Amino acid sequence: MALAAGRAMLMRSGVRLGTQAAARGGNGARRFMNHRVVVEPNTVPAGLDLREMCGKNPAHYAEYWRAVQEMWLKVYLSNLVLVAAINGTSPAGGCLIALSCDYRVLADNPRYRMGLNETLLGLVVPFWFKDTLVNTIGHRASERALQLGLLFPPAEALQLGMVDQVVPEDQVQSTALSVMTQWLAIPDHVRQLTKNMIRKATADHLIKHREADIQNFINFISRDSIQKSLQVYLENLKQKKH
Amino acid sequence: MALAAGRAMLMRSGVRLGTQAAARGGNGARRFMNHRVVVEPNTVPAGLDLREMCGKNPAHYAEYWRAVQEMWLKVYLSNLVLVAAINGTSPAGGCLIALSCDYRVLADNPRYRMGLNETLLGLVVPFWFKDTLVNTIGHRASERALQLGLLFPPAEALQLGMVDQVVPEDQVQSTALSVMTQWLAIPDHVRQLTKNMIRKATADHLIKHREADIQNFINFISRDSIQKSLQVYLENLKQKKH
Amino acid sequence: MALAAGRAMLMRSGVRLGTQAAARGGNGARRFMNHRVVVEPNTVPAGLDLREMCGKNPAHYAEYWRAVQEMWLKVYLSNLVLVAAINGTSPAGGCLIALSCDYRVLADNPRYRMGLNETLLGLVVPFWFKDTLVNTIGHRASERALQLGLLFPPAEALQLGMVDQVVPEDQVQSTALSVMTQWLAIPDHVRQLTKNMIRKATADHLIKHREADIQNFINFISRDSIQKSLQVYLENLKQKKH
Repeated sequence: MALAAGRAMLMRSGVRLGTQAAARGGNGARRFMNHRVVVEPNTVPAGLDLREMCGKNPAHYAEYWRAVQEMWLKVYLSNLVLVAAINGTSPAGGCLIALSCDYRVLADNPRYRMGLNETLLGLVVPFWFKDTLVNTIGHRASERALQLGLLFPPAEALQLGMVDQVVPEDQVQSTALSVMTQWLAIPDHVRQLTKNMIRKATADHLIKHREADIQNFINFISRDSIQKSLQVYLENLKQKKH
Repeated sequence: MALAAGRAMLMRSGVRLGTQAAARGGNGARRFMNHRVVVEPNTVPAGLDLREMCGKNPAHYAEYWRAVQEMWLKVYLSNLVLVAAINGTSPAGGCLIALSCDYRVLADNPRYRMGLNETLLGLVVPFWFKDTLVNTIGHRASERALQLGLLFPPAEALQLGMVDQVVPEDQVQSTALSVMTQWLAIPDHVRQLTKNMIRKATADHLIKHREADIQNFINFISRDSIQKSLQVYLENLKQKKH
Repeated sequence: MALAAGRAMLMRSGVRLGTQAAARGGNGARRFMNHRVVVEPNTVPAGLDLREMCGKNPAHYAEYWRAVQEMWLKVYLSNLVLVAAINGTSPAGGCLIALSCDYRVLADNPRYRMGLNETLLGLVVPFWFKDTLVNTIGHRASERALQLGLLFPPAEALQLGMVDQVVPEDQVQSTALSVMTQWLAIPDHVRQLTKNMIRKATADHLIKHREADIQNFINFISRDSIQKSLQVYLENLKQKKH
């Protein structure tokens, strides 16, 4: 997945998950920040690095999860226009980031599927993942998608409203660019205030329950059964690589 | 309507409303509980037994309504997978129970209609009926459906998202079984936690206002005008039976 | 836009925005009240009179905005059935009033567009405009529509659920009348209680934050940049008139 983050237009293709943010300093000069969340494509099927969740101590888990929360809050409340140009499968955390953008363009390739499939990994989706999905596709569709851990092919993702457009693979970036142009035509300050007004309640829900969410993550991820299933999962991925 | 409740697969056909729950004891053995809510098909067009609302005293109404709330909370928050196999008309309370399941399969028979038609009976739908409908078909569609007391035929129920599938009448049970199989393939504990996380706020809304909701029911149902219209209604049903 | 407000059936055509309310006194006699909100079509492209927002002092803005809030609360929580018969473009405040009715019939004329286009005027939509839109078309569609200030032609408005029916222009009023007939067939007191139950939370959201919303309006509208752009806008309208 690539994020187009503007006013400056940043595009990045590939299966890596990257959030790229452009910010303008007070003097009008542009500074670019690049927050990479995830590194190795094959070890990050959940969009988050599963190795960070495996065999570590509670303090590590706490720090890691706080960083994930922070990353999401930055993306979700970003003053930038964020357009997701999706040319790969977007499971779990990868899907969350796409859902947190302002617009989603998905390549019309039936192998590319998208969804919060945590239950299939033996994980319970955090409530703010759920909130973000409900905002996008509604309550009923979210209930089914989350419990079954469904990954949707492009046609279904479009019908559900999980993405805004499905286009031929070689037009994903140009479509995202043209969407970005449309969004950037809106008076920027007013658009930012409007976005923030709409998204504030959802972000505040996490902010208010942030520590409980971290504790919840630690308790869950520390379970023997979860650790065992994550290890098996990572082993399988390693062997696929060789 | 029938509910398929599983891990154990329980199916029951007919127009009676039954909730059947299967629970496993700590030792892994299965115990089955059978909570019948409603008895006589022809006297329960609202899915709840109208005779319980007619000519009784406030203490009776309070006890009755508390039991209805309790039944709904059990169904709505059930750890079991509940699939509604609907082969009859589901008005009012019957519709509520169907909406509280995890999935709804409706027979493709235009005579089978579904909806919260309380206004047509002179009743105001309780707020948690409304919450459940809004979760399923959204706010706008609920506003119209509730005020007009609409009962939707299968095609419209499907389009609104009030049911998930409409199939020929003789395939309702097999379809429900196959849906159940899909849901039971998900790691059970994680699915339960996920379901609870999604539904908790809606259930808490009732739990928080439970006593006020009971008082509201008593005040409303005790009105002379309501009692009179319920009596006329029940008389008409009796005469239809003979 | 015309509002059909009933039990008494009131229809008014034209591009003027009028809310007309019929109330019955305790003695069963009908009294009619006529609250006009907006006067000059060409100066009220936002559905609200922009001249009230231009070159005035904070006390004036406060009084004006409180009246706008009051008008909306009356329409949104009206005990009357309100059917919007829309035969013109409904931007901003005009759209809000239509969205606050019980049903919307739009003339099938591609020149008639509808939406909350505040960002294009350099304005941030108040949170209760947003709440009303989200209730009607959902969260995701609202995010995009509000940020981009989209005005939808009839076909799109219908698909989004922003209106309930699109009919040939000469059938708008007769369709609205027939919809009104359907709504008036419902027992009135029960319908009113049901409507209030559904809408109460949204209205309470404004009532709770009413003073902050006024303060917010004053702060925003008093900015030099906003005043300048409103003046340019009004000048352009005047010149179009001549």
